[in-house]
Amino acid sequence: MHIYQHEVKYYECDRMGITHHSNYVRFMEEARVDYLDQLGYGFDKIEAEGVFSPVVSVNCNYKSPTTFKDVIDIEVGINLLSEMRFEFTYLMRIGGKTVCTAQSTHCFTENGRPVAISKRLPELYKAIKG
Amino acid sequence: MHIYQHEVKYYECDRMGITHHSNYVRFMEEARVDYLDQLGYGFDKIEAEGVFSPVVSVNCNYKSPTTFKDVIDIEVGINLLSEMRFEFTYLMRIGGKTVCTAQSTHCFTENGRPVAISKRLPELYKAIKG
Amino acid sequence: MHIYQHEVKYYECDRMGITHHSNYVRFMEEARVDYLDQLGYGFDKIEAEGVFSPVVSVNCNYKSPTTFKDVIDIEVGINLLSEMRFEFTYLMRIGGKTVCTAQSTHCFTENGRPVAISKRLPELYKAIKG
Amino acid sequence: MHIYQHEVKYYECDRMGITHHSNYVRFMEEARVDYLDQLGYGFDKIEAEGVFSPVVSVNCNYKSPTTFKDVIDIEVGINLLSEMRFEFTYLMRIGGKTVCTAQSTHCFTENGRPVAISKRLPELYKAIKG
Repeated sequence: MHIYQHEVKYYECDRMGITHHSNYVRFMEEARVDYLDQLGYGFDKIEAEGVFSPVVSVNCNYKSPTTFKDVIDIEVGINLLSEMRFEFTYLMRIGGKTVCTAQSTHCFTENGRPVAISKRLPELYKAIKG
Repeated sequence: MHIYQHEVKYYECDRMGITHHSNYVRFMEEARVDYLDQLGYGFDKIEAEGVFSPVVSVNCNYKSPTTFKDVIDIEVGINLLSEMRFEFTYLMRIGGKTVCTAQSTHCFTENGRPVAISKRLPELYKAIKG
Repeated sequence: MHIYQHEVKYYECDRMGITHHSNYVRFMEEARVDYLDQLGYGFDKIEAEGVFSPVVSVNCNYKSPTTFKDVIDIEVGINLLSEMRFEFTYLMRIGGKTVCTAQSTHCFTENGRPVAISKRLPELYKAIKG
Repeated sequence: MHIYQHEVKYYECDRMGITHHSNYVRFMEEARVDYLDQLGYGFDKIEAEGVFSPVVSVNCNYKSPTTFKDVIDIEVGINLLSEMRFEFTYLMRIGGKTVCTAQSTHCFTENGRPVAISKRLPELYKAIKG
């Protein structure tokens, strides 16, 4: 898997001159979209099948500020937590220095109800289990 | 009609310490949502009928910067431009001082196609014509 | 202390029709800005003294989706974690139903270096300790 | 000059399933940042000299909606309007089809006051005049 990169935009920086902390949650989404694309299960493909993937939780630990034009390398990992739930992990670095570590947990829903990944998306299930 | 107010949030300010210019386009949306609610034609009500109101154009003239905690008074006006198109005007002020003037033009669509306001939303049409 | 309210904006909703999860991190900021104002230690006042309050971590648990026009009640709590670090807790509800619970941890910095809250902001320290 | 590209993110799309119109104003900023970098006058370089470049006005004409994963080609042009003011033009296309045309006008300020481009940034002035 390649590592996703996000270059910090001017409009993503705040009055302190640094990347506003809420934006990392968006970078996480960008990185997992890219990761699922690499796995062959892009959001667009999944949504076209009527399946959505709501976010159950997010957790960010800010280690070092970043700013305009910084290019953040985001290394993504994925783990199954149960039949219904999976987790992404994110290691964000600039030139090898960790700037943020994060996790997000997700489920899949169809018609508003959670679905078992192994049954509704068996190939993704296998891909995640490795 | 009452005047809509937006208090500038910390996360809306940029590295220059001022409200990022893109956010005024969002304040405009907030103000016209409120205005249509006052007219009795809220976005939620219109969308529930399967009608959407895409933005055709926006135009902002930034007169004076604003910043965190500023309360912007947004006075909204509405004009019909044609059977298919209408315009909102926005006068944004802080304590009487103009900080931004803006316009946006809109149409209504149903199933992806533009609809005549006078036919599909006749009461709104009358309300706009005054 | 009064409870902070955020009304969900149209532009805060995503393709799933619900409030994008990243925006809750912004609602948290709004709520703690308001909370510190009520305590008499607004961001603007603190920043005017050359003290900044970076976010060390955030954690959100999404319990139930919200959408356009929902008014979210955000109840904020504050705890000291150490001489250098404090925590906000957030309970977000709509009509009594919990939609999101969250925490954020923070420190204070001056000239880029962390400062002891009890020394640099003794009155806030007392206010937090209760 | 190369053409700037923006790939639409999931979080940039709204309840209508399309790119929220306010985000084009951010894409414009990304494109002009890139353009000024190509000219050798990046925002970071100019800001490091104590010069800021506030936006005086923006104007967007939305021609066709875009959505998640669309890659928008943004062709930027630059014109001097006066000694104090210059304009960027933006042609946004997907696969040759125009999706948005836009303009923005700007000035330069130092210590909060407008400066003559030809005097304060003579090389940029020459580059713009071509």
